[in-house]
Amino acid sequence: MAVSVVQKVQGQERTASAESLLDATAAILSEITTIEVSFSEISRRAGVNAAMIKYYFGNKEGLLLALLERDAESSMAALEHLVAMDMPADKKLKVHIEGIINAYYKSPYINRLIHYIVDTGGDVSKKRVSEFFIEPMLRAYKAIVAQGVHEGVLREIDPGLLYYCLVGAADHIFHAGYSVPMTLGTDGLDYEIKQRYLDMVSGIFLRGLAPDR
Amino acid sequence: MAVSVVQKVQGQERTASAESLLDATAAILSEITTIEVSFSEISRRAGVNAAMIKYYFGNKEGLLLALLERDAESSMAALEHLVAMDMPADKKLKVHIEGIINAYYKSPYINRLIHYIVDTGGDVSKKRVSEFFIEPMLRAYKAIVAQGVHEGVLREIDPGLLYYCLVGAADHIFHAGYSVPMTLGTDGLDYEIKQRYLDMVSGIFLRGLAPDR
Repeated sequence: MAVSVVQKVQGQERTASAESLLDATAAILSEITTIEVSFSEISRRAGVNAAMIKYYFGNKEGLLLALLERDAESSMAALEHLVAMDMPADKKLKVHIEGIINAYYKSPYINRLIHYIVDTGGDVSKKRVSEFFIEPMLRAYKAIVAQGVHEGVLREIDPGLLYYCLVGAADHIFHAGYSVPMTLGTDGLDYEIKQRYLDMVSGIFLRGLAPDR
Repeated sequence: MAVSVVQKVQGQERTASAESLLDATAAILSEITTIEVSFSEISRRAGVNAAMIKYYFGNKEGLLLALLERDAESSMAALEHLVAMDMPADKKLKVHIEGIINAYYKSPYINRLIHYIVDTGGDVSKKRVSEFFIEPMLRAYKAIVAQGVHEGVLREIDPGLLYYCLVGAADHIFHAGYSVPMTLGTDGLDYEIKQRYLDMVSGIFLRGLAPDR
């Protein structure tokens, strides 16, 4: 079962240690293509005793869930803020697409972690992932599509289906990052490619969701 | 290292056994969300002795690679045929989008297997996956985009980037199939949802890739 950082971490010093452990985990996961992080490597990088991982997070599932939750928190707060803004729906969609692609570029392990937890985790973990990732996204998509249809700037479309289509499109280049040197003839996935990908995905979806004239 | 079915299987009877083993593996992988298939369950379902898995495929990696290759063969032959047809490029794109979504619906484990082999497999396996999946797709995208730009029915776009965007969009609802009951309020991913997803993805990409008027 997952242990929340917030519940267990009270003192300032311990918070810093827990944060260092999460930073180290994120750094390692960004370098590899699996979820095979060892407690000893996390401990070494964070400069925090490995026993503290157990103390703060219970086990590997708890650690990974806490990392995912930390990544989700700021993204979902930003998304909620975006939905509430006084801005046309198509512009909101554009800002959102840029936001998720930048988030996946910064933390390419996000969808890998979600799949790992959903495939192998307990029911409590699955429920948490759904609560802090999928449900807020879905609420935002429903609100943006409804606003856009009302304003005449978006076609009527199922927000749930759009969620899969857009998240899949935004994520796949990062999830399949191993193949980038072969497909694009570059050393790897750098800022410039991320930026070109962002422009392309944004262009396809904004044109693709505009009402037919 | 991967062992090709074609190389090792000569007799009619052995071919049928190897095919039964692949069918059983495909059936099990379609039911679960990981790649945790056991030799004993494959053997039981196929009605073929488990020792034959080792004989035909060498090991688990060889078995999974052979399955992927079998799935790729027909899909890639169809794609090559499509590219060569006398048909406008936007229509080819539409047929291709329907083709990959139907392929993922039929074999939802395809991208899971690709990731597994690329993440944990040897260099020979990685090269094979690239040769029989990614390279043919990329060649087809290059040809279709070039034709479409020439005909004035598609915008100029990087075929390599389009590959990620389109494959990610087409695959994600199947890859994240576990969440469908929650997001769409249905029992699971059935034919009707697949069909609606196909129409939506196709609509977004065809509009999204059309030249600006």
